Amino acid sequence: MLLQNTIHDIQPVNRELYACAQAALNQLTKPVGSLGRLEDLAARYVAMTQLFPPTVPAALVFTLAADHGVAEEGVSAYPSSVTAQMVENFIKGGAAINVLARQVGAKVRVVDLGVQCDLSHLPGLMVRKVGKGTKNFLKGPAMSRVEAVQSIESGIRLIMDAYAEGIRLVGLGEMGIGNTTASSAITAVMTGRPVAEVTGYGTGVDAKTLTRKIQVIEQGITLHCPDPLNPLDVLAKIGGFEIGGLVGMILGGAACRMPVVLDGFITGAAALLATALAPQCQAYMIPSHVSAEPGHRLVMDFLGFRPLLDLDLRLGEGTGACLGIGLLQSSLACLTQMATFKSAGVDEAVGPSSEMV
Amino acid sequence: MLLQNTIHDIQPVNRELYACAQAALNQLTKPVGSLGRLEDLAARYVAMTQLFPPTVPAALVFTLAADHGVAEEGVSAYPSSVTAQMVENFIKGGAAINVLARQVGAKVRVVDLGVQCDLSHLPGLMVRKVGKGTKNFLKGPAMSRVEAVQSIESGIRLIMDAYAEGIRLVGLGEMGIGNTTASSAITAVMTGRPVAEVTGYGTGVDAKTLTRKIQVIEQGITLHCPDPLNPLDVLAKIGGFEIGGLVGMILGGAACRMPVVLDGFITGAAALLATALAPQCQAYMIPSHVSAEPGHRLVMDFLGFRPLLDLDLRLGEGTGACLGIGLLQSSLACLTQMATFKSAGVDEAVGPSSEMV
Repeated sequence: MLLQNTIHDIQPVNRELYACAQAALNQLTKPVGSLGRLEDLAARYVAMTQLFPPTVPAALVFTLAADHGVAEEGVSAYPSSVTAQMVENFIKGGAAINVLARQVGAKVRVVDLGVQCDLSHLPGLMVRKVGKGTKNFLKGPAMSRVEAVQSIESGIRLIMDAYAEGIRLVGLGEMGIGNTTASSAITAVMTGRPVAEVTGYGTGVDAKTLTRKIQVIEQGITLHCPDPLNPLDVLAKIGGFEIGGLVGMILGGAACRMPVVLDGFITGAAALLATALAPQCQAYMIPSHVSAEPGHRLVMDFLGFRPLLDLDLRLGEGTGACLGIGLLQSSLACLTQMATFKSAGVDEAVGPSSEMV
Repeated sequence: MLLQNTIHDIQPVNRELYACAQAALNQLTKPVGSLGRLEDLAARYVAMTQLFPPTVPAALVFTLAADHGVAEEGVSAYPSSVTAQMVENFIKGGAAINVLARQVGAKVRVVDLGVQCDLSHLPGLMVRKVGKGTKNFLKGPAMSRVEAVQSIESGIRLIMDAYAEGIRLVGLGEMGIGNTTASSAITAVMTGRPVAEVTGYGTGVDAKTLTRKIQVIEQGITLHCPDPLNPLDVLAKIGGFEIGGLVGMILGGAACRMPVVLDGFITGAAALLATALAPQCQAYMIPSHVSAEPGHRLVMDFLGFRPLLDLDLRLGEGTGACLGIGLLQSSLACLTQMATFKSAGVDEAVGPSSEMV
């Protein structure tokens, strides 16, 4: 019921407030439109949140972690044990996401959606375990339909709680050895592209492992025939618990008008599923970067997104989202802190050129 | 003599320290190379400054202002009076550069290299006037050879003073109504491309004014025949005082191993001149963004630079440089603040894949 209600609650963004923000930007002491894509970014934030004038929001980054049974097929450069080790690293503050979040004044919330081992001793970790890792999708569906819904609804609850705390900007991130395999599988099914085209080196596998990874994904898809018209079926058969959680955060964010900043390929796969479940949620997503993982560019194109950054990142955790958050904050700082032509006593453009963008 | 000595003092960047930084990055808890271009950025900073381990540097942004005689030909959407008004806006803190610099913890130093009117009453403004605006290059050279050298040497002194104060990262910016006209002229001469190809809408002129702008530049080049093998000749005949200042900051930065972050088209034109004067200075420049001004992409390609950002900015002042500074700071924060595999007790990659990037 929570999932259905959330989808039902998603409203379009406020186009009138987008226009108001744009009009306000045109009064600021700069040539009209000269802040380029930052102007659209600021106006989109206003249209999503209906906060006008907005403040420069402090962001919260969610890093959702889970294990993948398919990792036992040797599709990653790292053993599954690294998922739990990295969760501990996040909690201790030593990972890239901790450092990059701090650079933009964001807090990191780490959630165990389904790591294999018990991590409840880690202080500050939010435990929302759906299971002890998914099953190997070569041997059966990754999870049950009930677990798929549960993972999504966990994500919805997490973001709604954040909203209730006053958060108005969320970055998405993830950790899970094997999750580029699941994401490539999802992307192949949802976009209809060949597996080889949407599958990359992930954490840095060699060419032989990449070949194996592609075979594994093809076998999984052949075995289960996930139905692209039924995103829950796709998530259950070849997805992951953290991917389900991300789907829920995207849907829940849209339902409470909370902008969610996407990260790399895994959040992109979640965006595909969320968009298939509720196309109207797309207006609440902010793409941050396009990663080095080849499937990610296809996902961004498929969704009609032009990412802000193209830096060959392929780390996940929410690292790219943090960089996007920094740009969004900069755009909102301009909107709210710059002087106007009138207040600064600066002459405006002569003739019709001020209309140009 | 200062100019000649500065050029003479420029040393290559330290390749060994680049490799050391790269090796350190490979020990951090992330797949090797997964921070993409941020890793190269961090390692380049180390190689330039020879600071290893580096700190995350506070940056200083220089916004150099000057007027252009050629503005009287009606090549801009704004009257020349706006240069002085915007300088006042910078000093009062109401411009985009003030807001974006604050977002990355940078201070802004505003320098009058040649604004038409007297601005010495503005608190905090550094007055290094070479003249009261350049001459209209349709009626004679923009400045004398002596003034060209003086503008460059002012830039050298400014950055050397900043270095002496302990600054280890500088962003470049500028303000000057008419300066995209001068920059297009410089770019056409230095790259050999047709004027129409390197000339754009600047602050937002209409199509008719763009045609006039192209004619003015073509006439100026025909009149003076600036010699691309003699950058001082080009600067004197069709350049600007703030452009000369930027050339000096690039050369001076390289001489004292200070990384300088480029901004948009005008700093790009200065980079063309600086590189022609001293090719070895190029290794100390960090491109930030590629602007909406068509000539800028050509400049970046000509210099072999791949800018970090592509956000359709066309504002100048140093605004794009600030965004680039934020990315550089993030990269250095990762290099210096992340845990290593060993310190965090995280398993490293299995097999040969850890060697992949």
